[in-house]
Amino acid sequence: MKALVYHGPGKKLWEEKPKPVLTAPTDAVVKISKTTICGTDLHIMKGDVATVTDGRILGHEGVGIIEETGDAVSNFKKGDHVLISCITSCGKCEYCKRGMYSHCEKGGWILGNIIDGTQAEYVRIPYADNSLYPIPAGSDEEALVMLSDILPTGFECGVLNGQVKPGDTVAIAGAGPVGLAALLTAQFYTPAMLIMIDMDDNRLKVSRTFGASQFVNPQKEDAVRKIFELTGNKGVDVAIEAVGVPSTFELCQSIVAPGGHIANIGVHGKKADLHLERLWSHNITITTRLVDTVTTPMLFKSVQSNKLAPEKLITHHFRLDDILHAYDVFGNAAKEQALKVILEN
Amino acid sequence: MKALVYHGPGKKLWEEKPKPVLTAPTDAVVKISKTTICGTDLHIMKGDVATVTDGRILGHEGVGIIEETGDAVSNFKKGDHVLISCITSCGKCEYCKRGMYSHCEKGGWILGNIIDGTQAEYVRIPYADNSLYPIPAGSDEEALVMLSDILPTGFECGVLNGQVKPGDTVAIAGAGPVGLAALLTAQFYTPAMLIMIDMDDNRLKVSRTFGASQFVNPQKEDAVRKIFELTGNKGVDVAIEAVGVPSTFELCQSIVAPGGHIANIGVHGKKADLHLERLWSHNITITTRLVDTVTTPMLFKSVQSNKLAPEKLITHHFRLDDILHAYDVFGNAAKEQALKVILEN
Amino acid sequence: MKALVYHGPGKKLWEEKPKPVLTAPTDAVVKISKTTICGTDLHIMKGDVATVTDGRILGHEGVGIIEETGDAVSNFKKGDHVLISCITSCGKCEYCKRGMYSHCEKGGWILGNIIDGTQAEYVRIPYADNSLYPIPAGSDEEALVMLSDILPTGFECGVLNGQVKPGDTVAIAGAGPVGLAALLTAQFYTPAMLIMIDMDDNRLKVSRTFGASQFVNPQKEDAVRKIFELTGNKGVDVAIEAVGVPSTFELCQSIVAPGGHIANIGVHGKKADLHLERLWSHNITITTRLVDTVTTPMLFKSVQSNKLAPEKLITHHFRLDDILHAYDVFGNAAKEQALKVILEN
Amino acid sequence: MKALVYHGPGKKLWEEKPKPVLTAPTDAVVKISKTTICGTDLHIMKGDVATVTDGRILGHEGVGIIEETGDAVSNFKKGDHVLISCITSCGKCEYCKRGMYSHCEKGGWILGNIIDGTQAEYVRIPYADNSLYPIPAGSDEEALVMLSDILPTGFECGVLNGQVKPGDTVAIAGAGPVGLAALLTAQFYTPAMLIMIDMDDNRLKVSRTFGASQFVNPQKEDAVRKIFELTGNKGVDVAIEAVGVPSTFELCQSIVAPGGHIANIGVHGKKADLHLERLWSHNITITTRLVDTVTTPMLFKSVQSNKLAPEKLITHHFRLDDILHAYDVFGNAAKEQALKVILEN
Repeated sequence: MKALVYHGPGKKLWEEKPKPVLTAPTDAVVKISKTTICGTDLHIMKGDVATVTDGRILGHEGVGIIEETGDAVSNFKKGDHVLISCITSCGKCEYCKRGMYSHCEKGGWILGNIIDGTQAEYVRIPYADNSLYPIPAGSDEEALVMLSDILPTGFECGVLNGQVKPGDTVAIAGAGPVGLAALLTAQFYTPAMLIMIDMDDNRLKVSRTFGASQFVNPQKEDAVRKIFELTGNKGVDVAIEAVGVPSTFELCQSIVAPGGHIANIGVHGKKADLHLERLWSHNITITTRLVDTVTTPMLFKSVQSNKLAPEKLITHHFRLDDILHAYDVFGNAAKEQALKVILEN
Repeated sequence: MKALVYHGPGKKLWEEKPKPVLTAPTDAVVKISKTTICGTDLHIMKGDVATVTDGRILGHEGVGIIEETGDAVSNFKKGDHVLISCITSCGKCEYCKRGMYSHCEKGGWILGNIIDGTQAEYVRIPYADNSLYPIPAGSDEEALVMLSDILPTGFECGVLNGQVKPGDTVAIAGAGPVGLAALLTAQFYTPAMLIMIDMDDNRLKVSRTFGASQFVNPQKEDAVRKIFELTGNKGVDVAIEAVGVPSTFELCQSIVAPGGHIANIGVHGKKADLHLERLWSHNITITTRLVDTVTTPMLFKSVQSNKLAPEKLITHHFRLDDILHAYDVFGNAAKEQALKVILEN
Repeated sequence: MKALVYHGPGKKLWEEKPKPVLTAPTDAVVKISKTTICGTDLHIMKGDVATVTDGRILGHEGVGIIEETGDAVSNFKKGDHVLISCITSCGKCEYCKRGMYSHCEKGGWILGNIIDGTQAEYVRIPYADNSLYPIPAGSDEEALVMLSDILPTGFECGVLNGQVKPGDTVAIAGAGPVGLAALLTAQFYTPAMLIMIDMDDNRLKVSRTFGASQFVNPQKEDAVRKIFELTGNKGVDVAIEAVGVPSTFELCQSIVAPGGHIANIGVHGKKADLHLERLWSHNITITTRLVDTVTTPMLFKSVQSNKLAPEKLITHHFRLDDILHAYDVFGNAAKEQALKVILEN
Repeated sequence: MKALVYHGPGKKLWEEKPKPVLTAPTDAVVKISKTTICGTDLHIMKGDVATVTDGRILGHEGVGIIEETGDAVSNFKKGDHVLISCITSCGKCEYCKRGMYSHCEKGGWILGNIIDGTQAEYVRIPYADNSLYPIPAGSDEEALVMLSDILPTGFECGVLNGQVKPGDTVAIAGAGPVGLAALLTAQFYTPAMLIMIDMDDNRLKVSRTFGASQFVNPQKEDAVRKIFELTGNKGVDVAIEAVGVPSTFELCQSIVAPGGHIANIGVHGKKADLHLERLWSHNITITTRLVDTVTTPMLFKSVQSNKLAPEKLITHHFRLDDILHAYDVFGNAAKEQALKVILEN
């Protein structure tokens, strides 16, 4: 089969690889129908993710059709349409039982990382019963690709951890795909105000169509002062960090109200300053999280009942064998006005 | 009347001051029976608390007897024995209604800070109905002085915010009075392991009598390694910071398990490093809090039913007019093996 | 002044009464601008509420303008526009501190019950700081009358107690005003399915315009079977009882899924059967609640940010002195297609 | 092998049965070391449990040693000592993912019910990875038998569902084994008062040694009046029903305070009256639950750290082949002063 293979920083090839086979009774092999590219894949290509080694097939998102299942797989059979979770869950370790699949002792984020991934014609999925979700006939499968990673990430790490409530004021720092995923899913809880912060006016404009009610461009105005004005000088109830650099995380500390929440989504490469000399008495809560995808069934129901429109995140389409081109476009997201791309097999 | 008065950094006098009078219908004047000294009072004496100005009577803890009440006070009358909360609550602002008395728009920590305090023969208590608690006849009033500040602080900021649960492993960094208050009240939730961390072996020894099960002296051993050994290489479910310096807060980051909590109690004068480059994916929660004293009624019930023994925190007794001596002893806590002192009027 | 006065079962008069005066420093007198009639007022008129005695002015809802305040009132001054809560909260008893204002030791539901109420030109409000809410200039005051009782009742007793979550299936038994209030506020949490159950097709039709997605008329079809069909044979996650008779409460028991919630809003005059022989193993939760109005500030924010449209509940308008006519219309709600009426002073 | 086999109401035999074999890759066969008898087994013998048919081996509790495992079992291997959960969990259905193993689509309570159980020399355990727990070397295995069912049942259905908190007043109706299990585990949360209600003075006496602080015998005094006296006329924060008959469930309704919880543990054969005409406005919560055994890992940790002493529940010992005698003793629990029996293989 053909697959996108990592060969060290900056080097990737669309090349022939052996079709995956079952290696355990809990495995399934899935024929990929549609996949996508994640910001994390770009990090990998820079050489920032040490666990990814030469020869690895990338990708941890997608939908497909069951090709083959191990003897212990009971939820799926050949021909079933499935959503692939970016997080593999064994379903039987301490962390899985606690709903913290991200730290599964045998799984977690392994696809396109320490085992071969989904940017390929076929992929082997370990612990298939707990790591795949059935797609009912008649679903918009393309939209569901957004449920592999980006939507549960924005929702779990940003919205749930931030404890967004009706009537809240919420600020999201970063209007890229994951910030927009947080913006979409924050509306499940009907906050009173949804402030989007980004240095790219186009992304702010896009965020309006996703439901943001206020907009702050820190390059054009004093973000902290503006947000205090918007919130009656109180600060926000929830500040969601969706960039992954110290400055946005520190901005969140400046705008959170007493009793408020800072929910980190961003993948950070450096430490940040935590201003305990001011915040020690502010009754705030800071959370971090690698997505658990424990909310995937709920997100599914929300899509099926038209309460969530994941397809809004999709801006570009490519054939799977045109994936190198897709990486170029996605890698120049600002210029290309790209959010998420779809690769069709 | 006599009172302990602040006259700038390093200067305090036991001097004559006018007896306080009612200034609002919601006020009460209380004759102090017993009071104590807080670590915060030592910070004030160093000049670290800018809101405390020359001429201020210090102190925010104590028990006493109602001397006089305003027309709108209905919970108390002259002669009632009362516990004074370190936090003044108006009971009618947004924060009070949310149970966040620490940020009361008209109260919060004001006693011995921006209004005169309890290290005096009398004190005026604003919003008396919400800021005092009735002491039933026959109570050990000395023990109840510990409910003014130290016990709710350890419990709310450390134990409740840390979400200590049955079966948890808990580490407390700092075996001073507030760390020991957290240790006492953590046992309400029956954790499986209570690890005490301090550089003073005597304090570690004391913590054993308060219920700690494991002990780590970072000056004598590698604290992180020891704690991973104790916890089967997982780290702790809850790390409570009870010192207020960057190094202990950073230690907490090194020992917290995935999915765990860091609950800050310490009063910090400097920022700390937050190692998001490691923690972003660890599903942790960090909290800060100025005590709200919202749990005082519950702590009262626990004392009355012999589930909590606050008197264990009291090591020294003085007459109130001997308060300068008491400050000396409390200011040399390690040498004097002092935890909390009682001053009797 | 003029007021609507109860004179025993079936007897009420619009008659002259003394204008109320301050009786405590925490009181305010409010000039009524707009008030309404509650289903509970109809119960009173039938003689069903023993605490209401001859001579009582009825009514516990409304908006008005502060006429006079006691010395201890600090949140309000003469001329302020205010919303009157149906629940009086002293702000300083154990129940008020726990956010359970309904059981306030000195308040609770007392207006138009054990003290004179709001169906009058003026009303005395005890504990004004905790029992009134400021109305910002420019608000739609008529819409806000719905925040005195009906909306917090539907929201707190039905939606919050029912723990409605994104993706849930919710059934509401009873499409009268309080059922519709639950329907409006359930949408704060974006459930996947909102099933309305009523025997009046007109009310079901109205509920569609309030956001219900499915409709069941138990007089025309087997309600239990229909709801199991709609929910993939699982039953509902949340069943809200908004009628107050045994049969609807028992219907809720028949349709709730394992792990689900039954949230009672209805005012019941009789016991109901609880089918423990079936439900003991179903992991369900049943709640009851007299509204606390603890969510009024949040509902206010939701109205101000256009996330909630309370005016949808208002179907009829009358002058206050035409209140006897208004009672007739409201008392024939089905025939008159009446939900809530507004009485203007 | 030998096993206790049900042959219709009142008929059971200790007889020869084929040794169980693996039937699925997720199965394990366990050699029983110790088992026990449950109150439910007595119900079965009366013919009250329709799902149990002629020829069924009874029993759903015990510890043992792994004899054989299917290919998909990864947590256990031959020779491992294991605790058997009374609830079988597939780990991959919607209910298991929600932590509601009791309603597992393929498991739940099936042992000794719809598949053969543990009162035998060997037992087949489906979904072994999720339905067994490893026993560390050196454990008191006899004590751990109490973790198969009785302790998680008392804890989950009574204590967790009742939301017992520090400072609470708690009443437990029924001082049999499951009531005592609730009593033991309620102490994890340090309530202020633990009232035990039973008609058997001996059981009340036993409950004192388990930590109860107050005792009520409804045959000798007015239980409701006594409990209101004990609680300052408020009623209890938590009432736990541990009998399973209408009268005790109705007693719980009479003694629960406003804002309180009724947590049902009892297995009921009949409906009960729910006094909504009084309780509709009392802000109470009623819960039912079939044990999920989701807390077994936590209970394990509590036993290992000496915070829980399950062996207190064990009163009698028998050889497994003396099980008919053991049933007689356990069936006359009051007269024999029996709580739980241990059967050794």
